[in-house]
Amino acid sequence: MYILFVGDVVGSPGREMVKEYVPKLKEKYRPHITIINGENAAGGKGITNEIYRQFLEVGAQAVTLGNHTWDNREIFEFIDQAKYLVRPANFPEENPGKGIVYLKMNDLEVAVISLQGRTFMAAIDCPFKKADELIEQAKKRTSIIFVDFHAEATSEKQAMGWYLDGRVSAVIGTHTHVQTSDNRILPNGTAYLTDVGMTGPYDGILGVDKDLVIKRFLTNLPVRFEVPKTGRALLSAALIEIDQKTGFAKKIERILINDDKPFYS
Amino acid sequence: MYILFVGDVVGSPGREMVKEYVPKLKEKYRPHITIINGENAAGGKGITNEIYRQFLEVGAQAVTLGNHTWDNREIFEFIDQAKYLVRPANFPEENPGKGIVYLKMNDLEVAVISLQGRTFMAAIDCPFKKADELIEQAKKRTSIIFVDFHAEATSEKQAMGWYLDGRVSAVIGTHTHVQTSDNRILPNGTAYLTDVGMTGPYDGILGVDKDLVIKRFLTNLPVRFEVPKTGRALLSAALIEIDQKTGFAKKIERILINDDKPFYS
Amino acid sequence: MYILFVGDVVGSPGREMVKEYVPKLKEKYRPHITIINGENAAGGKGITNEIYRQFLEVGAQAVTLGNHTWDNREIFEFIDQAKYLVRPANFPEENPGKGIVYLKMNDLEVAVISLQGRTFMAAIDCPFKKADELIEQAKKRTSIIFVDFHAEATSEKQAMGWYLDGRVSAVIGTHTHVQTSDNRILPNGTAYLTDVGMTGPYDGILGVDKDLVIKRFLTNLPVRFEVPKTGRALLSAALIEIDQKTGFAKKIERILINDDKPFYS
Amino acid sequence: MYILFVGDVVGSPGREMVKEYVPKLKEKYRPHITIINGENAAGGKGITNEIYRQFLEVGAQAVTLGNHTWDNREIFEFIDQAKYLVRPANFPEENPGKGIVYLKMNDLEVAVISLQGRTFMAAIDCPFKKADELIEQAKKRTSIIFVDFHAEATSEKQAMGWYLDGRVSAVIGTHTHVQTSDNRILPNGTAYLTDVGMTGPYDGILGVDKDLVIKRFLTNLPVRFEVPKTGRALLSAALIEIDQKTGFAKKIERILINDDKPFYS
Ligand SMILES: [Fe+2]
Ligand SMILES: [Fe+2]
Ligand SMILES: [Fe+2]
Ligand SMILES: [Fe+2]
Ligand SMILES: [Fe+2]
Ligand SMILES: [Fe+2]
Ligand SMILES: [Fe+2]
Ligand SMILES: [Fe+2]
Repeated sequence: MYILFVGDVVGSPGREMVKEYVPKLKEKYRPHITIINGENAAGGKGITNEIYRQFLEVGAQAVTLGNHTWDNREIFEFIDQAKYLVRPANFPEENPGKGIVYLKMNDLEVAVISLQGRTFMAAIDCPFKKADELIEQAKKRTSIIFVDFHAEATSEKQAMGWYLDGRVSAVIGTHTHVQTSDNRILPNGTAYLTDVGMTGPYDGILGVDKDLVIKRFLTNLPVRFEVPKTGRALLSAALIEIDQKTGFAKKIERILINDDKPFYS
Repeated sequence: MYILFVGDVVGSPGREMVKEYVPKLKEKYRPHITIINGENAAGGKGITNEIYRQFLEVGAQAVTLGNHTWDNREIFEFIDQAKYLVRPANFPEENPGKGIVYLKMNDLEVAVISLQGRTFMAAIDCPFKKADELIEQAKKRTSIIFVDFHAEATSEKQAMGWYLDGRVSAVIGTHTHVQTSDNRILPNGTAYLTDVGMTGPYDGILGVDKDLVIKRFLTNLPVRFEVPKTGRALLSAALIEIDQKTGFAKKIERILINDDKPFYS
Repeated sequence: MYILFVGDVVGSPGREMVKEYVPKLKEKYRPHITIINGENAAGGKGITNEIYRQFLEVGAQAVTLGNHTWDNREIFEFIDQAKYLVRPANFPEENPGKGIVYLKMNDLEVAVISLQGRTFMAAIDCPFKKADELIEQAKKRTSIIFVDFHAEATSEKQAMGWYLDGRVSAVIGTHTHVQTSDNRILPNGTAYLTDVGMTGPYDGILGVDKDLVIKRFLTNLPVRFEVPKTGRALLSAALIEIDQKTGFAKKIERILINDDKPFYS
Repeated sequence: MYILFVGDVVGSPGREMVKEYVPKLKEKYRPHITIINGENAAGGKGITNEIYRQFLEVGAQAVTLGNHTWDNREIFEFIDQAKYLVRPANFPEENPGKGIVYLKMNDLEVAVISLQGRTFMAAIDCPFKKADELIEQAKKRTSIIFVDFHAEATSEKQAMGWYLDGRVSAVIGTHTHVQTSDNRILPNGTAYLTDVGMTGPYDGILGVDKDLVIKRFLTNLPVRFEVPKTGRALLSAALIEIDQKTGFAKKIERILINDDKPFYS
């Protein structure tokens, strides 16, 4: 079985790319499950109910989040009803929402877990210990387990990949907004990619207007980051092939769609 | 003309990969200039004179460094004599060594600049302002300018790429030890890659024994990081084609050599 | 001669304390110069022109700032006209405003310098190098030099104290909002205090509503920090006695006014 | 009843101060319990068994630690036998040692808890949640509870003070090595002090040779921090008076002994 995972969708340019290419990717690769990271989908900051619904309509079965989970306050109103919205599981327990979701696909079940790193990020609960806990729980239902590890440091991401190797189907990183080229199947059967990359403006900086970010670095003056509404866009994704009997990954492929690397059906 | 750039060489496994594959890569691609980032070449921490010499012998014309520049104290003894050793130019001025080197190649001259980021890293001088200063100086001699930007944050790296677009031939990132897949020619002619990746152990975490790093993340107990001496290794590099008249890049290609992606001559 | 320095004024409770007690302190101690750190004076974030004027009217000769300098956007409109407003001198050069101000007092002149640290703070220019530069400039006019060092880390603050010992009259820290008890005259004649403390709510956390801050630490959920409008308040200050001939400090005294330590005239 | 708490003892100058003045302080104040923070007692880095024993011999009933707990590897050999050695309780569970100790004093029992902050520090377990857990446990045995909160940020420390106000006898901060002047009894009966300060070299930077630290700030070059063996020293401490029936604090006093503020019996 195949899982298609689309990386951090940023603002309207990112959402447009999802609308245009997720259907095409689904037609091309026929994934059984499509997952979208939507933590930046609403103007770069968080997600709204409407966008969440759009992602489901365009063919996603689950939407993962990250450190921007609570940026758009609307989420507090709909997260309890959003069955397929997954925020990092190692947020402190007072946080609304959930960090694991089970998706039914015919007689298959897939567990989707979101975890967030701590290096150069907020002090939350240990993602490694939380992974142990959730995997033990998920294993009772299925051996197909997908982990979106939302983290900054390559060391922490590789550590999670190796730590979970042989215990989950895939550990795919998000958050840095730049796709890495290190997709591989680890020795014990887990598909790994340090970062799947972002989906949104192609000529910005992590999806933000580049002049604003440069101004910030040069001057340290306050800058209100904005997602450019026009201009070229890219989509970043990964396709993972999993043995549905064992839950082990057989293949992991990177997908990039942009002006330099156009989509071919 | 072509520049071959090999990413952070880690310990003896990394040096072995350099010895084995740099000659083969040179034979295959015929680069005019080969540059190696050697900040982790001596057991993961800094570089020795002997290793620096080995890199030159194997065919590098320049060796760049990064935040691990001073880790091996031997460097203080030989850096003043090491004509082709380039440490980040935006280290405070009291630092020995230099941040720019000019390489002669027939009637061509290439400027090699090293800069280091500040996000999630040490508080040093502004890499953007220092880039302005060095580029102005280099432009008087040549339009072929290569920048190794040693930085952690993808935002700072992309910002540098866009900031220097059209002013230098290439901005290639190092330090995260994971190759990114975003190689591209920016609109004004600069080749860009967020990170070229590392050269060293293939089954470690950034080149370090993976069990030690995992132990550290799980327990926060002190761990002495060690580069595994045995096991599989990888080499990460980039090949940049530059128009020698204008200094603009025409093409940038990623290179990965490992057990999953073996080298083909 | 005496300098009275009042630490980070936070919101309206802080401004009320200034209005009530600065006149009383001036009457009691007869300082020749009064300086107020106002970086949090406007609702905890930055300063407005009106508040700056109030501080001058109540008897301050200069107002220093810090990392919150630009939080209230109004400052961009009046900073060029605000002759006695001092923002950290080591902000990048594109920043409006100035980092040194000279105050005339009869035939005396006092230089007031603001500097900001970098440890656990933004990556700006080196405060130590900038100090060298400004002191060299100031020495041509006066030997009475007051430095507000706005920094987080006690190590960086003590380092600045020792680095400037014998070259300036006083190095007084701000930013942590908690007064330290280490006031002393360093061996070469500079008055030193790691942090003068804040002026504002007495029952908050650094001047912010305590329940909001605690919620943030417990849950990592987004919280909009607010300065409580009611409740008890404190004022934190320091009084430095300086030999006006040499510029060396003779004495430094801490001042705390709160419900537990009421003001006595 | 009285508790005397001596802040971070740094190297041999700190240990000498303990030997000389703890007996005098005990004679003067007659504390029922004396606690010493010894995280920097062995050359600035960790503690040895011999030093731990010295502290008990000189009259301490418990020794607390902090982020330097494991710096001296000898601790792994004796921590299991060191009944009165308390390391931060919110270290991950794999860590040896314990974070709470009960001291018997005639028919009184005192719980001593160590916790470590996370702001600008390592990502460990939540100190607030761990406090809840330990206080619930301790309350079954005693209402006299002393908390050493080893943390960098004043916000986190004040948050802990307010969070535990009325539930413990005292929350005293350590780690910044600079004593704060904000000793107070919070409204619900908990004694609070943001930082008790350090015990060691008086003319260093946090106890380290000042020239080395300044060199580090100026150049970012590697510097091996060393505790000066000679020179003046200071002792920093706090004395807390507690109602032994209720466990509430009645008074908290700061103690500083140095050349500028000599000890008077
Ligand atoms: Fe994102
Ligand atoms: Fe993110
Ligand atoms: Fe490296
Ligand atoms: Fe590096
Ligand atoms: Fe402040
Ligand atoms: Fe501040
Ligand atoms: Fe300490
Ligand atoms: Fe500490």
